[in-house]
Amino acid sequence: MPLALPPTIGKSMADELSIDPWGSSQSTDYSRIIDQFGLQSMQDVDVPNPSRLHRRDVIFAHRDLEFALKEHEKDNLFLYTGCGPSGSIHLGHAMVWKFTKWLQDVLDVDLWFQFTDDEKFLFKDKSFEEIQELMKDNMLDVIALGFNPKKTHFLIDTKHASIMYPEAIKVAKKLTASSIKSCFGLGDSDNVGMFFYTAMQAVPAFLPSILKKKKMACLIPHAIDQDPHFRLTRDILPKLGFFKPASIQCSFLPPLTGVEGKMSSSGDAFIALTDTPEQVKKKINKYAFSGGQDTLEEHRKRGGNPDIDISFQYLRFLFEPDDKKLSKIKSDYRTGKLLSGELKKILIDKINDFLKHHQAEREKAKKKVDQFVLKI
Amino acid sequence: MPLALPPTIGKSMADELSIDPWGSSQSTDYSRIIDQFGLQSMQDVDVPNPSRLHRRDVIFAHRDLEFALKEHEKDNLFLYTGCGPSGSIHLGHAMVWKFTKWLQDVLDVDLWFQFTDDEKFLFKDKSFEEIQELMKDNMLDVIALGFNPKKTHFLIDTKHASIMYPEAIKVAKKLTASSIKSCFGLGDSDNVGMFFYTAMQAVPAFLPSILKKKKMACLIPHAIDQDPHFRLTRDILPKLGFFKPASIQCSFLPPLTGVEGKMSSSGDAFIALTDTPEQVKKKINKYAFSGGQDTLEEHRKRGGNPDIDISFQYLRFLFEPDDKKLSKIKSDYRTGKLLSGELKKILIDKINDFLKHHQAEREKAKKKVDQFVLKI
Repeated sequence: MPLALPPTIGKSMADELSIDPWGSSQSTDYSRIIDQFGLQSMQDVDVPNPSRLHRRDVIFAHRDLEFALKEHEKDNLFLYTGCGPSGSIHLGHAMVWKFTKWLQDVLDVDLWFQFTDDEKFLFKDKSFEEIQELMKDNMLDVIALGFNPKKTHFLIDTKHASIMYPEAIKVAKKLTASSIKSCFGLGDSDNVGMFFYTAMQAVPAFLPSILKKKKMACLIPHAIDQDPHFRLTRDILPKLGFFKPASIQCSFLPPLTGVEGKMSSSGDAFIALTDTPEQVKKKINKYAFSGGQDTLEEHRKRGGNPDIDISFQYLRFLFEPDDKKLSKIKSDYRTGKLLSGELKKILIDKINDFLKHHQAEREKAKKKVDQFVLKI
Repeated sequence: MPLALPPTIGKSMADELSIDPWGSSQSTDYSRIIDQFGLQSMQDVDVPNPSRLHRRDVIFAHRDLEFALKEHEKDNLFLYTGCGPSGSIHLGHAMVWKFTKWLQDVLDVDLWFQFTDDEKFLFKDKSFEEIQELMKDNMLDVIALGFNPKKTHFLIDTKHASIMYPEAIKVAKKLTASSIKSCFGLGDSDNVGMFFYTAMQAVPAFLPSILKKKKMACLIPHAIDQDPHFRLTRDILPKLGFFKPASIQCSFLPPLTGVEGKMSSSGDAFIALTDTPEQVKKKINKYAFSGGQDTLEEHRKRGGNPDIDISFQYLRFLFEPDDKKLSKIKSDYRTGKLLSGELKKILIDKINDFLKHHQAEREKAKKKVDQFVLKI
């Protein structure tokens, strides 16, 4: 039977928000997103020791987080997130996964990490072999972020299809073509793998319950563009005897070129986790949108606007852990004491410190992959 | 891109033939089927030692059989057929598989035997567990028919998904939703697993080429209702670097109730391979449509019509190996020398002889399953 979904999620409906796992343009009006898609604001939840991303409203919404935390008290919760291997891992991915690692550390639970190689093959103009190479490479970045190898399980859609496909068809049997069309904006000229795919993305939300033979709660930290998948998953899982997965929505790390939209690894205006210090310096200086004034004199007199300044925003999203220091940078910039070039320099140094450590861990990760990939 | 298929294969187009893997009513006008779907008549092929089913026009059409036989001379051919586990195995299944076994014996080649448990789960109102039970049971009937265990490989769509799903998505990427709609008559209210499924059925037509690392020819003996699947497969495989699969089309073994349509394991008017001698006797006497006259006197005078007599037809399709004996039965029936009851008796005895042997082999098959299921 068709799912009763509002026709508002999907591609470019006039005057409607567009949230779509595969679109390049995305809405970033987060309070409207909360209203329109029935999310709960993160501000309404009492989180005992909020992460930096909570405090700075980067984590802006959730579904059923209280339920997940209650199940956690009963030792009945796992985490699930994922990676679609279609290019280099950039800071936008790292942000969601660093938050996921924070959650894993705080909650001390298993994390199921899905690699959707099927999805990227079906949706991108890339060969199967290219996607496999990208996936192997992407895994190194995920491991380098420091996930607990004893509690982190990589699920690869194609490699683990013998355990995933039999479950995916149970989801697919309850999903009509029309529900996929209205949820994702797909049409009859799209390929049938695209129609089927969301069923595979639903599986890690209940597979651990099957493997552990008990009905467990699932919490999914994810970037907001994945929400359409998990809305469908939430509709279907109770029909299969599982809990609706809870979720936490991250806003997008913006591209270097401005605060609208999301960072993407197409083009050149993003920071990859494999960039050299020189590349980072060049990219930030060339592309990072500045909220400063046109001339030094004017900047000193009128100050800059941190709200639209990408360098400041990246410090807020990712690179300045200290709230007081961040606050000082903000006021110094706003008053004109801190110049755009100086702000960029702060960011460049922070990013390069992070990448130096990350890239060293990434080298070590090459020997750790087997510890993470689920044994079958 | 959409496949340029004529919109004529599919469900109930006015004045068009209906050939559909999942429909209960099927066209049986085989010469029109050959014309409409671009098949080649089997009568145009020179088969050195034709099987009984060839001689009796049960095997009525093919695609690229000459090509397959040429590749066989180069030791570069395998066979592929399958079973959709949704009920008891009946004589209609046995006919196609006995022909397949004949082919395997004559050609001495590998046979890939697919069990489409995903298909039957997605298309039928049955649970996953029910389908698994039926599949285990169906395997015994397949094994009991005498396939060579050294050269016969059971592929189970869900169990072997780790090798099949990665290949199926390569097919799916080249199949649009609209091509599925026009080929199978599916619509937006059908589930997305149904849209995806034909990609899984395509896989055994090229998987052996991948496993053996050489481009091999495939020959698929199948009942005509599976033709829509393999037409799509033939369109796509060359785009993936494989040969178009060749195929041989069997006509339908008719249901007990009359020569139109195909035997189906719904209802009671079929012979299952697990039926007892009493059940066979009862079913044939009760349901088998008779081409005889209403009274003994009239039958002796005017004779019966073997063309519409199910008992005669089953002897032709399956149970009388000797062409001369069959011919004598036919003329004796037509002249009124052989009565309907006598004809039914001949058939009942033949079926029960066959089932006695089959059911003994079926018991032995319980210990042989592991020899057939592909090791992963």
